[in-house]
Amino acid sequence: MNHQQALTKYLAAFVGEMVNSGITEVVVSPGSRSTPIAMVMAEHPGLNLHVHVDERSAAFFALGIAKAARKPVAILCTSGTAAANYYPAIIEAGISRIPLMVLTADRPHELRDVGAPQAIDQIHLYGHNVKWFVEMSPPDGGDEMARYARTVCARAAATAMRQPAGPVHLNFPVREPLIPALEDSLFEFSERKERYVNIQQGELSLDESTLEALASAAGNGPGVIVCGPMEDERFTEAVIHLAEKLQYPILADPLSQLRSGSHDKGMIIDAYDTILRIPGARKFLEPKLILRFGAMPVSKALSLFIKENRQARQIVVDGGSGWRDPLISATEMVYCDESVFCQQLASRLDKSNNYDYVGKWQTVNQRAKEQLAEIRDVPELSEGKLFCLLADLLPHQAALFVGNSMPIRDLDTFFFHTEKQIRVLANRGANGIDGIVSTALGSAAVMKEPLYLVLGDLTFFHDLNGLIAAKLYKLNITIFLVNNNGGGIFSFLPQAEHPKHFERLFGTPLDLDFSHAIEMYGGSYVPVTDWDHFHQAFAELKDEPGLKVIEISTERDRNLSEHRNLWKSVSREIVLTIEGLDNEA
Amino acid sequence: MNHQQALTKYLAAFVGEMVNSGITEVVVSPGSRSTPIAMVMAEHPGLNLHVHVDERSAAFFALGIAKAARKPVAILCTSGTAAANYYPAIIEAGISRIPLMVLTADRPHELRDVGAPQAIDQIHLYGHNVKWFVEMSPPDGGDEMARYARTVCARAAATAMRQPAGPVHLNFPVREPLIPALEDSLFEFSERKERYVNIQQGELSLDESTLEALASAAGNGPGVIVCGPMEDERFTEAVIHLAEKLQYPILADPLSQLRSGSHDKGMIIDAYDTILRIPGARKFLEPKLILRFGAMPVSKALSLFIKENRQARQIVVDGGSGWRDPLISATEMVYCDESVFCQQLASRLDKSNNYDYVGKWQTVNQRAKEQLAEIRDVPELSEGKLFCLLADLLPHQAALFVGNSMPIRDLDTFFFHTEKQIRVLANRGANGIDGIVSTALGSAAVMKEPLYLVLGDLTFFHDLNGLIAAKLYKLNITIFLVNNNGGGIFSFLPQAEHPKHFERLFGTPLDLDFSHAIEMYGGSYVPVTDWDHFHQAFAELKDEPGLKVIEISTERDRNLSEHRNLWKSVSREIVLTIEGLDNEA
Repeated sequence: MNHQQALTKYLAAFVGEMVNSGITEVVVSPGSRSTPIAMVMAEHPGLNLHVHVDERSAAFFALGIAKAARKPVAILCTSGTAAANYYPAIIEAGISRIPLMVLTADRPHELRDVGAPQAIDQIHLYGHNVKWFVEMSPPDGGDEMARYARTVCARAAATAMRQPAGPVHLNFPVREPLIPALEDSLFEFSERKERYVNIQQGELSLDESTLEALASAAGNGPGVIVCGPMEDERFTEAVIHLAEKLQYPILADPLSQLRSGSHDKGMIIDAYDTILRIPGARKFLEPKLILRFGAMPVSKALSLFIKENRQARQIVVDGGSGWRDPLISATEMVYCDESVFCQQLASRLDKSNNYDYVGKWQTVNQRAKEQLAEIRDVPELSEGKLFCLLADLLPHQAALFVGNSMPIRDLDTFFFHTEKQIRVLANRGANGIDGIVSTALGSAAVMKEPLYLVLGDLTFFHDLNGLIAAKLYKLNITIFLVNNNGGGIFSFLPQAEHPKHFERLFGTPLDLDFSHAIEMYGGSYVPVTDWDHFHQAFAELKDEPGLKVIEISTERDRNLSEHRNLWKSVSREIVLTIEGLDNEA
Repeated sequence: MNHQQALTKYLAAFVGEMVNSGITEVVVSPGSRSTPIAMVMAEHPGLNLHVHVDERSAAFFALGIAKAARKPVAILCTSGTAAANYYPAIIEAGISRIPLMVLTADRPHELRDVGAPQAIDQIHLYGHNVKWFVEMSPPDGGDEMARYARTVCARAAATAMRQPAGPVHLNFPVREPLIPALEDSLFEFSERKERYVNIQQGELSLDESTLEALASAAGNGPGVIVCGPMEDERFTEAVIHLAEKLQYPILADPLSQLRSGSHDKGMIIDAYDTILRIPGARKFLEPKLILRFGAMPVSKALSLFIKENRQARQIVVDGGSGWRDPLISATEMVYCDESVFCQQLASRLDKSNNYDYVGKWQTVNQRAKEQLAEIRDVPELSEGKLFCLLADLLPHQAALFVGNSMPIRDLDTFFFHTEKQIRVLANRGANGIDGIVSTALGSAAVMKEPLYLVLGDLTFFHDLNGLIAAKLYKLNITIFLVNNNGGGIFSFLPQAEHPKHFERLFGTPLDLDFSHAIEMYGGSYVPVTDWDHFHQAFAELKDEPGLKVIEISTERDRNLSEHRNLWKSVSREIVLTIEGLDNEA
């Protein structure tokens, strides 16, 4: 068996097991050293290859697919700095617990650290930011190496998926010649046709005595349930059932997936970001117990509320066995599958009849939302109002991807619960402004629902290259580009009080006319001039396929004062509402 | 002293010492956590701040400044994936030995690994790819911490510059509030006004007996000197003097800086890439000694020649004490400053009178160049011909930046030595197609000479975001965009014989009309239709400031056959020339 045959047999074993392990999507970036891996992948009928020249965008695109499809996705690139371009998406995948299988071709051993072209040190290239690193063996043509390739592949896929999910990195040293010997029987493996090794993953659950203790503790309310970003489809029903048993309101982050859908919303509180800005409201709604699920919510006001209530018992449930406690406030860490926890606990509880506390939340929440809805009357183009309108305009089944910085915060403030099935997506692992376009497009590539993306101009600029995927693969996406010509969030931060360096270091206006970029990528572009125009553009583009960008130009200063004025007026009303409730009692 | 004052004192000490250490340029990307560092930097009159939103481009921009100015440059970004975007440029800086001081703001200790927003693991974020990593202490307001900040800064700058130069990474945990206390006396430090600590760096030189042995060895020619990429300004004169003493031809890579300038070119061989493709020529020109300087040259034919001559004594001189021997052919590694080595050795040698061997090289080189010049007659737009014309058209003082993949190879083949002072630049550390636009613009930002960039469409696309710097800072650059709609180099590789997956995996046509992007970034764009048009466009744009892009559309297939046909005809002529020389002898 010559080198090419040995290489091909080895890679075919690996690629065959990828498909056996449930991987169907691979994002490939062109390169020379990765040639045999890419060509063997292209031969497998079970793999969809997405080719993306910019590896940074490619990795985020894969992240978006994995996020939307809730399954591992592979990425493949050549040796050298190509692989370093994957780093931002890999870190995001790690923190947001998204399974990625990172495959990098490498120079073989004799070409390492000797000044060979396109050779960098790829061993542990991503440091602690991957769950598992494997320097793959060179092939030798034997069956043992094929078995090795199969088990490493199956193990890598399972490791990527195991909670907390995340990225794994397999580095393939490849010697020339780089062309595989392609034959019909490439993926046949007579020994075990179906799959080389199945990995059965258990689920974390609690023992009886721990559950009893927690059930008894949970009865000592009043308490709140805080749900941050969560992606377990069973969780919605389980947590609502638990909340009803306990009569605890659920403070539901937009990424908890609890604000949208046909489930009962009685216990869902969605205006807490506004309510908890008010000191009197925080006092009025003081809990004795806080039960947290998911990553930290986006709301800073909610964080402050949690921090101010360190006298309360604070239970953090984490199926990924992490340490989600930036406020140093937890009294208990519970490592148990979140849905299982809710079911187990609820089954041990009688329904509470203490409706007062949740009632207070419901009343205040209702009043806050009525007040916030006044943003609908703003005549000018407004970042907050956009999210109110999206709740009306999006179809019943949709995906809404939001950028970091301002959009996720405005979504939190202005996008209330709805009967529609709107899956909300964002990159909330490391909250970067990088890779958002590509992540959204990756999601759009595999989702049945139409996908809408809201992002600011700096975020849009950062990953403008990502739009190439929309062009090349004719992906459907509607982008709401909120263009305030710079970094809007900085106007909300203390440096805004220091005008000397502000615009240069933080405001950073780019003064770009994005219509050119959108035309280059074959998209439709409508810069709307007012809300009538916005509605008209939305209606016109609704059924058009492909890339569509609706640009909403806003002003950073006006946006700041609009938010501040609204919060001030809501605050006044909430204080009155609380006084009224206090007088009733 | 409150937290803000302590933080400010600490950062001012650090920033003050940056300037004392010779750093004048900082590339800053906007962010919240890095606010106090950026604001203190902005206060220092000795620093030029370049603001760049996309951290990947920002780091390459800094690399370009450092490359052009031959001094260390600092980059600063906020916490999170922002810092991961620096990775490709950091790796390139490490391998190509360019000094960078990487400054990342980080969450403070209590916000690490606890699910806090925008917090990633930044400790040793770049692994082995930086020369030094320091997790900076939080400030405490005392003078001792100011001294610590000063010495770490001075040491970091010296470490970055020390051979082999490269990147260093300092990570700053920063607590809120993030606004510094800006006062007039920010950078005063009474103890030692000038500089806290001076670092005196010695130079590697050889002892007498080693030199004698090498001088005696070098006399046993015939030999060749191979000069790869080199940036030491003293080197040109020193190596030419040594070559003349030894009567060794210098095979000068385009990045050796030996092909351009007013120095004597008698010993310079610049058509070796073509000559050494011919088996008969390799045999005819077989050396007994190979003396190598600099990184590996780009020419694959030259590599093959070195590899085929493992019977020869092969001496690799490296002032950076690396291991530049991908061909596993070295017999000696000499760790000595390259210029010092040439001077020391030359001073111990009598001038050789063995002119035969160098004469053969000179004759063959002359003949090859005459033949290669026939590409000037090609009527169609041609990638190779472009470089012949550039030699004519570029002004007497200029910088020529070339992309990887095809441009650097065509430069090697078609850009012969010239009396003009043309500094040739490229990213030949890891040879990536990433970050080329930004690296070139960074160089353009600090060079007096006009800068010309030649790159392909995939490379241009990969760093399209980099063009924002040209727009925002009104940088002058002329870009020759060689657009063959895809990855031209793959047509030269074996996969071109496998049409089934070729276009999808390797050809990867993007079908982009770049005029839109160039208009967005405020540049002039001329897609030339033929060579007359090219000359006309060059003349018209010559004195225009700003971003100028001349697009030369070519065809990958025609380019391949043009190269192959030319090499075939040159080969025929060289074989005849060698037969003629053999008959004479």
